[in-house]
Amino acid sequence: MALYVQKYGGTSVGTVERIEMVADKVKSFHDAGHQVVVAVSAMSGETNRLIGLANSISDNPSPREMDVLVSTGEQVTIALLAMALEERGVSARSYTGWQVGIKTDSSFMKARIEDIDTTSMRNQLDAGGIVIVAGFQGIDDDNNITTLGRGGSDTTGVALAAALGADECQIYTDVDGVYTTDPRVVPAARRMEQVTFEEMLEMASLGSKVLQIRSVEFAGKYKVPLRVLSSFKEGNGTLITMEENGSVENPVISGIAFNRDEAKVTVKGVPDIPGVASRILVPISDANIEVDMIVQNVSDDGTTDFTFTVHRNDYSKAMAILKETAKELKARQVIGTDDICKVSMVGVGMRSHAGVASKMFKTLADENINILVITTSEIKISVVIAEKYLELAVRSLHTAFGLDAEEETQVSA
Amino acid sequence: MALYVQKYGGTSVGTVERIEMVADKVKSFHDAGHQVVVAVSAMSGETNRLIGLANSISDNPSPREMDVLVSTGEQVTIALLAMALEERGVSARSYTGWQVGIKTDSSFMKARIEDIDTTSMRNQLDAGGIVIVAGFQGIDDDNNITTLGRGGSDTTGVALAAALGADECQIYTDVDGVYTTDPRVVPAARRMEQVTFEEMLEMASLGSKVLQIRSVEFAGKYKVPLRVLSSFKEGNGTLITMEENGSVENPVISGIAFNRDEAKVTVKGVPDIPGVASRILVPISDANIEVDMIVQNVSDDGTTDFTFTVHRNDYSKAMAILKETAKELKARQVIGTDDICKVSMVGVGMRSHAGVASKMFKTLADENINILVITTSEIKISVVIAEKYLELAVRSLHTAFGLDAEEETQVSA
Repeated sequence: MALYVQKYGGTSVGTVERIEMVADKVKSFHDAGHQVVVAVSAMSGETNRLIGLANSISDNPSPREMDVLVSTGEQVTIALLAMALEERGVSARSYTGWQVGIKTDSSFMKARIEDIDTTSMRNQLDAGGIVIVAGFQGIDDDNNITTLGRGGSDTTGVALAAALGADECQIYTDVDGVYTTDPRVVPAARRMEQVTFEEMLEMASLGSKVLQIRSVEFAGKYKVPLRVLSSFKEGNGTLITMEENGSVENPVISGIAFNRDEAKVTVKGVPDIPGVASRILVPISDANIEVDMIVQNVSDDGTTDFTFTVHRNDYSKAMAILKETAKELKARQVIGTDDICKVSMVGVGMRSHAGVASKMFKTLADENINILVITTSEIKISVVIAEKYLELAVRSLHTAFGLDAEEETQVSA
Repeated sequence: MALYVQKYGGTSVGTVERIEMVADKVKSFHDAGHQVVVAVSAMSGETNRLIGLANSISDNPSPREMDVLVSTGEQVTIALLAMALEERGVSARSYTGWQVGIKTDSSFMKARIEDIDTTSMRNQLDAGGIVIVAGFQGIDDDNNITTLGRGGSDTTGVALAAALGADECQIYTDVDGVYTTDPRVVPAARRMEQVTFEEMLEMASLGSKVLQIRSVEFAGKYKVPLRVLSSFKEGNGTLITMEENGSVENPVISGIAFNRDEAKVTVKGVPDIPGVASRILVPISDANIEVDMIVQNVSDDGTTDFTFTVHRNDYSKAMAILKETAKELKARQVIGTDDICKVSMVGVGMRSHAGVASKMFKTLADENINILVITTSEIKISVVIAEKYLELAVRSLHTAFGLDAEEETQVSA
């Protein structure tokens, strides 16, 4: 007997029919003798409908009341799923965030879980029943309803698994696992049997948005084995683990992430003196522009070039701010472009293998793809290239690093 | 400064625009220096939508989960109304049933309020803010969400007013008060400035369904002055009070209620011995058929006739049961008809005035309307007549008892 926490997202519970499919799946685990705690999202579209109502009343609705409003979405789902399970003869009981005792801080719309009281869940599990918890929500110390922010149901699932010491936290979604890269770009992309938390973190932040990043951090911190699976297809999904896969046969690179939404800006010829980086970035940050990659190269003539990337939507704003900053700093020039993309190779195996970078750069060079910016971390190498080369770059790298799935045998008539 | 509890029903908060109208109205009371606690229903249609979801999953959904589900309707409204008030610069805070501490028993879908903790409401009112409470819901001792049953938001409003010792509980609805009878039947029907609780109870149970009957009982029990007003029109509505209106000028009759949904059944020639009434009614009650009027007249030849009315939908079932009972009791005959209606005159003034009944019967006789059954209570006389005479009877009585509104002066061009 194992204890599973299963999380089903909005698409998986988007209609009554799908809620019934979820009930069948949950029941199958229960029938097999396991204990099951289920965390669910709002039915897809419901949260947006509620936000639409709020926005038609106020451009800037009270965050406290937003949480009262949107938390109803998950409450509807837990009730319907509990009914569907009871209809199937399985004892099930729904719990809102406050009923199950998910204590958070008071940051409405982006609260963080502080504590979970497992008493009522344990009692229900011990009585042979299924526990159904509203994802995404909790209460603060003053009994205000809080929500964890978009995608927070993943975090609820992981937090419940951690609090209960579950054997596995299963995140059911509309994809059947984590892929080596986006299959829409690389048809040969392969589902990974497993991936480490660190790799997953690098992948998530780079755009392979299968899981909410906070839930992965949480799972890593509390050592909760996490599995991503499809709600609609059978299969093992992808297991996200603490351990590196020990086998020497394993690829150095686990996956290739990419992001089209970036723009690159460079301040050229800034005096190479302490404090320059912050003088450039503080006005950017004050304007609420998020910065992704940051690169500064060695100086030659007492000046240096400072480059960073921002979301493409913030490109013009960033350029305007930088032109002011450049004047103050007496920098030579501000240049930028928004027809770029970022490609990142991720793998814990990279740590112990030299030559990944050179092989990456050579592969790109063989395709005549010019590299504009390079940054690296222990388990990641990212490059900025012209956007038009994105597909070519990802496919070439996917093949060069041995990530392609074996082709299925074609049987001709 | 007064403390008002205002209740707005589903139609009054049916759209975002209407919620904004309610916010304007609440704000006007707050601006005038009053303290305001608002209880709201779900937006019209929402409760039915949620019940529809449940019914598509189960013919007999878990009552506990039904309450988890449908209680989200009011939660949406409280958040939106609080936002609309905050948008108008008024401090407002929403409370679900559990947040405000509305304790009920554990009868899901038809719970009764046992206690209300006024601490958080008092704090908010003392801080100059408006309190917005989800109607229709509470929690039981085990922290389960409960609902009070359809129309329960009225009861919430009255219970809040009682707990807070409010100066008045104002029930906003889509009619502008309680009328002497249904204006669709009698165009000359007049809005009553005030009516007593007892009269209102008799009117409500007879079909003038402006207020949920339990809320009227509650208001009477806790001596909460209750006022019914229109959400959409200005006006004083109708005040429902403890005291009879002392003025001698007042009409003996306050209003005329009627009901078309009845059928009449009679067991003729039953032995006039003790226990017969219960032997007739127990099988009816066991079949979940509700009985309204019951009449048994004096016996002459050692047998008597026993008549009662049931809802028209239960007519055939009641007749079938009675035929069995009649055999056992060796009764002579079972007869019945479902083309009848009930007309009731209600008024506390009736107590001290003789002659109301005779005037009523004479008025009907003058119109050649035959009376089939008569029952009376201290403040009510009801008659059963053929359904086709309903309008004629109600209009004649309305005029005869001086209830008609004065005709407005017609100005011709």
